Amino acid sequence: MMAYTCSSPSSSTSSFFSIKPKTPSPKPHFPKPHFIKASTNPSPPPPPQQQPKPISVSKPRRPLDENIRDEARRNNPTYSHLFSAKYVPFNPDPSHQTSDESYSLDEIVYRSRSGGLLDVEHDIAALKTYDGKYWRDLFDSRVGKTTWPYGSGVWSKKEWVLPEIDDADIVSAFEGNSNLFWAERYGKQFLGMNDLWVKHCGISHTGSFKDLGMTVLVSQVNRLRKMNRPVVGVGCASTGDTSAALSAYCASAGIPSIVFLPANRISIAQLVQPIANGAFVLSLDTDFDGCMHLIREVTSELPIYLANSLNSLRLEGQKTAAIEILQQFDWQVPDWVIVPGGNLGNIYAFYKGFHMCKELGLVDRIPRLVCAQAANANPLYLHYKSGWKDFKAVKANATFASAIQIGDPVSIDRAVYALKNSNGIVEEATEEELMDAMAEADSTGMFICPHTGVALTALIKLRKSGVIGKTDRTVVVSTAHGLKFTQSKIDYHSKEIKDMACRFANPPVHVKADFASVMDVLQRYLLSKSPNH
Amino acid sequence: MMAYTCSSPSSSTSSFFSIKPKTPSPKPHFPKPHFIKASTNPSPPPPPQQQPKPISVSKPRRPLDENIRDEARRNNPTYSHLFSAKYVPFNPDPSHQTSDESYSLDEIVYRSRSGGLLDVEHDIAALKTYDGKYWRDLFDSRVGKTTWPYGSGVWSKKEWVLPEIDDADIVSAFEGNSNLFWAERYGKQFLGMNDLWVKHCGISHTGSFKDLGMTVLVSQVNRLRKMNRPVVGVGCASTGDTSAALSAYCASAGIPSIVFLPANRISIAQLVQPIANGAFVLSLDTDFDGCMHLIREVTSELPIYLANSLNSLRLEGQKTAAIEILQQFDWQVPDWVIVPGGNLGNIYAFYKGFHMCKELGLVDRIPRLVCAQAANANPLYLHYKSGWKDFKAVKANATFASAIQIGDPVSIDRAVYALKNSNGIVEEATEEELMDAMAEADSTGMFICPHTGVALTALIKLRKSGVIGKTDRTVVVSTAHGLKFTQSKIDYHSKEIKDMACRFANPPVHVKADFASVMDVLQRYLLSKSPNH
Repeated sequence: MMAYTCSSPSSSTSSFFSIKPKTPSPKPHFPKPHFIKASTNPSPPPPPQQQPKPISVSKPRRPLDENIRDEARRNNPTYSHLFSAKYVPFNPDPSHQTSDESYSLDEIVYRSRSGGLLDVEHDIAALKTYDGKYWRDLFDSRVGKTTWPYGSGVWSKKEWVLPEIDDADIVSAFEGNSNLFWAERYGKQFLGMNDLWVKHCGISHTGSFKDLGMTVLVSQVNRLRKMNRPVVGVGCASTGDTSAALSAYCASAGIPSIVFLPANRISIAQLVQPIANGAFVLSLDTDFDGCMHLIREVTSELPIYLANSLNSLRLEGQKTAAIEILQQFDWQVPDWVIVPGGNLGNIYAFYKGFHMCKELGLVDRIPRLVCAQAANANPLYLHYKSGWKDFKAVKANATFASAIQIGDPVSIDRAVYALKNSNGIVEEATEEELMDAMAEADSTGMFICPHTGVALTALIKLRKSGVIGKTDRTVVVSTAHGLKFTQSKIDYHSKEIKDMACRFANPPVHVKADFASVMDVLQRYLLSKSPNH
Repeated sequence: MMAYTCSSPSSSTSSFFSIKPKTPSPKPHFPKPHFIKASTNPSPPPPPQQQPKPISVSKPRRPLDENIRDEARRNNPTYSHLFSAKYVPFNPDPSHQTSDESYSLDEIVYRSRSGGLLDVEHDIAALKTYDGKYWRDLFDSRVGKTTWPYGSGVWSKKEWVLPEIDDADIVSAFEGNSNLFWAERYGKQFLGMNDLWVKHCGISHTGSFKDLGMTVLVSQVNRLRKMNRPVVGVGCASTGDTSAALSAYCASAGIPSIVFLPANRISIAQLVQPIANGAFVLSLDTDFDGCMHLIREVTSELPIYLANSLNSLRLEGQKTAAIEILQQFDWQVPDWVIVPGGNLGNIYAFYKGFHMCKELGLVDRIPRLVCAQAANANPLYLHYKSGWKDFKAVKANATFASAIQIGDPVSIDRAVYALKNSNGIVEEATEEELMDAMAEADSTGMFICPHTGVALTALIKLRKSGVIGKTDRTVVVSTAHGLKFTQSKIDYHSKEIKDMACRFANPPVHVKADFASVMDVLQRYLLSKSPNH
């Protein structure tokens, strides 16, 4: 039986030919392909000169008993820490540097001495040893391959993320490199725009942008454990994307992950990712605040690393989405980037990514940022409208955009800094606005989450007021896959949402199963769609 | 208020500087980055020589009133059809070419004169005008950008897919370029393997690999409509990934899509993608066979293009996943590729992609293919076990791997051809085997669909029998996102599946919400996870 033949072809191919380390070879200069020439001369280029047929075109492989992590280690034995980063207190006003407080990234510290936020500060002078072109070419050279760890969209920017971690300690699922989608029909039909894009960060391993930050956090924890620091696991109190990403990355690394959840308040559907990814899920007979309180207490007693939302390591991963947008546009800078905002770390991460690209000479300006909030959880919007005076937390009401239902955002200072420094704007979306925007976007071929509906509503409002022009290159950041929000889409298209018209619902049409009935219904439908109708 | 300032930065930037067409510039030769050097000399390279600071590093943009589709048209005014393709009858025995039957791709034809399958045949001699290195470099040069249409993993291989379509007629969501995931922990822990990979085709726009084929089918339909051929819409009878992908691509292009479904036999959750994507969904009081029968009748009366599973255009898109795997491995050839099989088009598509790469000199061999079937729907497996004698359709029983629950596969001849020509193997998986494999894979950080569980089971069996070696580079093809199969995961982890032990279920642990109880439970858990335990 074929299934039992043992002559696997691998045994006959290069086994130990690949002692020569595999380095990303410099891209050769090759003749411009004929079909992208703009020459007015219609004749195709001559074919390449006749060459002797190569004996073997396959490239050498590494030794068979080596994995890609070992290979990275072998290729990189002399890793010289040219670059470095450290924790410093987040300081919204650099002209008032009041302390020289700082911490190694190998310390476990969540807040500054004064209880404020931390920021990961890179040695920019060292990074500036290389010019913008060098960084652009380097990042571009790493796209589309599986070289460890640079096949990841986050770790392809490793020198700007966690420069001092060994490649072999990184925990990566080759995250990032997500789809930057040209929203051609949506832009044209609903906004008169020709250059509208959606950065689908949610088309990802765990279905949300949280992967980008979690690969960094879990990699650093993995490093600490390899250094014999006492970290027995990583914990969080979250129902949503955070616990899913945390569990997945911990599972990859074999690190225990612990998730605290309120019993009887969430469905097992919300739990399925951490459970499937082998997290230790504690279901507690209390509410969310109770879970949060307990996990803080527990992590002060047990050496469990807390993957909370104020963690500044995660923002280092998230900022690579901004760099990736520039890269995907061949280092052309968009005019606007619109980011949904709840706890407000992500808007700062985008700012930081864009700002580093400008500071290090990859581009010469940054986009204007827009933070989009649900009207049911809009403390930043109110703060912005007050002219950045007197921030007040609000009580967040339920919103379909459940991941941004936050009344007292942890990263408020980071967000205000990002917006002030990018000539930014804050907008808000009601429940009906965000669900209608989601439905309209879906009707043009997307399948977005309600948070993206919030961002699209902000865009609609800014287009209407003329702030965003019809030819402005605009990127809407989509934070989760629509497949995580099928229930809200079902409710909308079934018109089962209280006090909502669900104007763009598209329910199925029930028809008798005979030829004449079906033809009749179809012909009427097709007539309504014909251009002359 | 800031929201009403109108000085968008775009108005001050290059508007008409970009008359010079943007072509993918040849990759420059740049100094090897220091951190991938394998030199034994630990000193870092000197920084690049001091250069005058460039005035502007942003690249020129196209005219503001032009979109990327227009830009592609302008850059490509002299598109000379060097390459071509046509429909021919699928012929499993090229030594017995019996007819010169062929059709232009601009004809609407689903089957050969004799009622057999069709195949898209490329002008290989024309493609051979360029050598393997040329194609490798060309495909590599297109990765990671948003140049229309090459930002897509399918259309980056356009010359090999639909060479004659105008770029401006293509309907694309920048599909493909999907994650090739190194299954480090799963390979090590469960199989003793160091080079196991999962090609996550389901981490995609519509959540399955069907995007790859549907972009080709809908693009060709779009071309036919632009040529004023009478195509009023595209129809299919499917609950699953096909109707989702069809609806999404039709929505992008503004082409009516029509989906026939049996009333009361499927949940609205299965419908949510076509409904959200604006398909005209007909719910008919019949079963699946009745829907299939009706749509065939209707499409013979009305000019509705039928997106059925025998369509050979779709396979042209699907084959690019094979090319992409080679590309992501830097054109090194894996030893094994394992593909779940139901209607059996995809195993042939993978074969075709690999075979073209060998024939055109990009690589010098192809991987051995394994087709993995659910034991509940295993006609190919039985056929293989019989020594490829007397194929018999079977009655397919229910399987968690619902997309491959097919007893009489349309592409049986294609699959047999692919397997015979790749020294291939067929394996099968019981329901318990596939669900256990899925759960084990998830516990190492993946979140896969049951079809991938089928493919992993095949791998487990071939590892156990020694057919696949521990250092063989092996790729498992994952066809859908796990987020489409949360219910089966919930059932498994709740141990609510009849006659299944659900050995790897990981249900949540209920704990009283007080510090002592939580500490007690956690300490016991952590002790069980400690290395000295």
